[in-house]
Amino acid sequence: MIKLNQNHLKLRSNYLFATINQKINEFKKNHPDVVDQIIKLGIGDVTRPLPRVCIEAMIKASEEMSHTETFRGYPDYEGDSYLIDAIVNKDYLPKGVNIDRSEVFVSDGAKSDTANFQELFDTDVKIAVSDPVYPVYVDSNVMAGRSGEFKDGRWTNITYLDATEQNGFIPKVPDEKVDIMYICSPNNPTGQAFSRSQLKAFVDYAIENNSLIFFDAAYEAYITEPDIPHSIYEIPGAKKVSIEFKSFSKTAGFTGVRCSYCIVPKDIVIKDPISKEEVSLNKLWYRRQATKFNGVSYITQRGAEATFSDQGQTEIKQIIRYYLDNASIIKSALNNVGFTTFGGINSPYVWVKTPNGMLSWQFFDYMLEKLHIVGTPGVGFGKCGEGYFRFTAFSSRENTEKASNRIANHKFGN
Amino acid sequence: MIKLNQNHLKLRSNYLFATINQKINEFKKNHPDVVDQIIKLGIGDVTRPLPRVCIEAMIKASEEMSHTETFRGYPDYEGDSYLIDAIVNKDYLPKGVNIDRSEVFVSDGAKSDTANFQELFDTDVKIAVSDPVYPVYVDSNVMAGRSGEFKDGRWTNITYLDATEQNGFIPKVPDEKVDIMYICSPNNPTGQAFSRSQLKAFVDYAIENNSLIFFDAAYEAYITEPDIPHSIYEIPGAKKVSIEFKSFSKTAGFTGVRCSYCIVPKDIVIKDPISKEEVSLNKLWYRRQATKFNGVSYITQRGAEATFSDQGQTEIKQIIRYYLDNASIIKSALNNVGFTTFGGINSPYVWVKTPNGMLSWQFFDYMLEKLHIVGTPGVGFGKCGEGYFRFTAFSSRENTEKASNRIANHKFGN
Repeated sequence: MIKLNQNHLKLRSNYLFATINQKINEFKKNHPDVVDQIIKLGIGDVTRPLPRVCIEAMIKASEEMSHTETFRGYPDYEGDSYLIDAIVNKDYLPKGVNIDRSEVFVSDGAKSDTANFQELFDTDVKIAVSDPVYPVYVDSNVMAGRSGEFKDGRWTNITYLDATEQNGFIPKVPDEKVDIMYICSPNNPTGQAFSRSQLKAFVDYAIENNSLIFFDAAYEAYITEPDIPHSIYEIPGAKKVSIEFKSFSKTAGFTGVRCSYCIVPKDIVIKDPISKEEVSLNKLWYRRQATKFNGVSYITQRGAEATFSDQGQTEIKQIIRYYLDNASIIKSALNNVGFTTFGGINSPYVWVKTPNGMLSWQFFDYMLEKLHIVGTPGVGFGKCGEGYFRFTAFSSRENTEKASNRIANHKFGN
Repeated sequence: MIKLNQNHLKLRSNYLFATINQKINEFKKNHPDVVDQIIKLGIGDVTRPLPRVCIEAMIKASEEMSHTETFRGYPDYEGDSYLIDAIVNKDYLPKGVNIDRSEVFVSDGAKSDTANFQELFDTDVKIAVSDPVYPVYVDSNVMAGRSGEFKDGRWTNITYLDATEQNGFIPKVPDEKVDIMYICSPNNPTGQAFSRSQLKAFVDYAIENNSLIFFDAAYEAYITEPDIPHSIYEIPGAKKVSIEFKSFSKTAGFTGVRCSYCIVPKDIVIKDPISKEEVSLNKLWYRRQATKFNGVSYITQRGAEATFSDQGQTEIKQIIRYYLDNASIIKSALNNVGFTTFGGINSPYVWVKTPNGMLSWQFFDYMLEKLHIVGTPGVGFGKCGEGYFRFTAFSSRENTEKASNRIANHKFGN
């Protein structure tokens, strides 16, 4: 009989969101009278419409596809040149970062890219993630056979970097040797962002230890404070050790349109100890993409390009301001009733310490039953998330204000 | 130093299309006077515009994305319900095939799906491909570590099923035990299609040997003859042993829009000999997609849905007729001057035996230099392709007729 990939079998089902949905459905069944009062601040999905300039670009591109003269077939694996130009000139140049056109790879999502990039490496490379963590970094490595066994809430072969209240939810560099470090800043789920010196510590570690950093900057557009790097390449030496993942999802509302990109610097040359070859990671990723991927829709890429136009940037900034104001409204409401909160300043996520030492799931139940508000239990993102809770700012202003008023007027007892 | 995936390093660059482009560029440099006479019948990419009804659906979907009330965030991993309904009711039901909604997975391309599906299996499962073969089946398995070494034009651990003139380019079932068989019918590159009894032989082999068939039906819409199955599920028992891959690319001109789907029947339950678990392949694929993929653009899915409308079907049939007429024009021209040809009847590909025992690459050079026509050397798809050549029907009518006239008026000497 055919044998299955045992590493895929290891992967646990996503109990977190399954359990959340189950609990909501149970609550609805038992409390049919308050069903329409439930406000969801749990899932990290956007709700504001796309910038008008993107819609117009996609309509124009669709029209082009209906005429022989302007019809487009297979896109280039690495992305279309107009979009790559916009990324180089409109995203990176203003940050003082020089990216070569050949270093940009457009794809259908940062989830795909962050999940697939590990493929380029041997099964026994050592990976490090923060705890709490975006689950895709871990799960894709479990599927690749790098995780070891699951014991006491953690995988035995993965190095976890504790992000706790003590370190402001910004972990320290590993105290053992690791090969690949996943960093998400501004962070999902904690909403905290790495300062320049905090990020520099990781780049220096990577240079010293011949390691690589997979830097997920999906929430970069939410940064409001001056000392937070918008790109890891702002840190000296980072281009030798870092892949950067970016997305149009949270920046321009593209979760339903699917477009992202990653930067694979040509400076990264791996002296592979097994084959003894010197290998350009950029070329290796190109070959991976050319073999298993066929590029992004022309219509989508034109929509993405439009986000970099002047009008696009104006519209995007308004949308981000809207979500950041939501974050501020929730955060203030929580602070005003005495909660300890993190995030929400450079990020659409507000990370809150549960009151009275409640466990994450206890607080979930409490919020659902007493205030009819759904959030995400922090423990779902890792052990260090226990006793914390994530609210997102992606709901409508109306619902955000309603939820905040309920928090303001509630007496959080035991 | 970090170790690379040695299997990725094994993968040879795509010498085929790189060499073709290099040869064309060299020819252009040496013959600037005939540059604009070059006709490309090489690459398998479509050229006709999308059906108008698809364009309109995508414009409408784009507009929906610009209003809060109709905006869509993350798509479902498995595809949106309206598209899945259309696939079940408009693609499969008319073929007499019952597919459950939960058996359909929409994705961004049949290339992604055929490349990724092997992930679900152990590294040491034995795979079989036809020769000649669409390179992605082989390359994705090389990257996964299943190939062994490359010797004399073949990978040592892969079973090659010879498709030759003697068997009409339809290979026989393996004479050894294999776990997974990749079948593409109508075939890329040979243009030949499996008859019902030929396909039944593979299904029977799979049932008998506890094997699986990965059936690539990307060119199904080109079938014109009655005895050719449009879906492998028309064969009794196939639902227990077959995954079917389908695409909107060649059917509706979606190469630049990116949409496809695969069917993973719930009947396929693997009794895994290592874990001793009984595993639903459908559930395992769902988990893989949920972890590494985030669904297809809403706009794209609405465009794909429109291909199943009455107007969509009418327009699609016209486009396919156009390409099939191109195939017929090339095929006739070749036959009239004495070539032996295959395919082109249930497929947009015409597979031709080179004259006078020329090697594939010799004929490539000959066609480029004497007739300024570019095709694809058969040997690029595998050893059994040596001495053969592929023409595609995806060019314009004008260029197809021009190329055919050149063939008709040329004296093919030595």
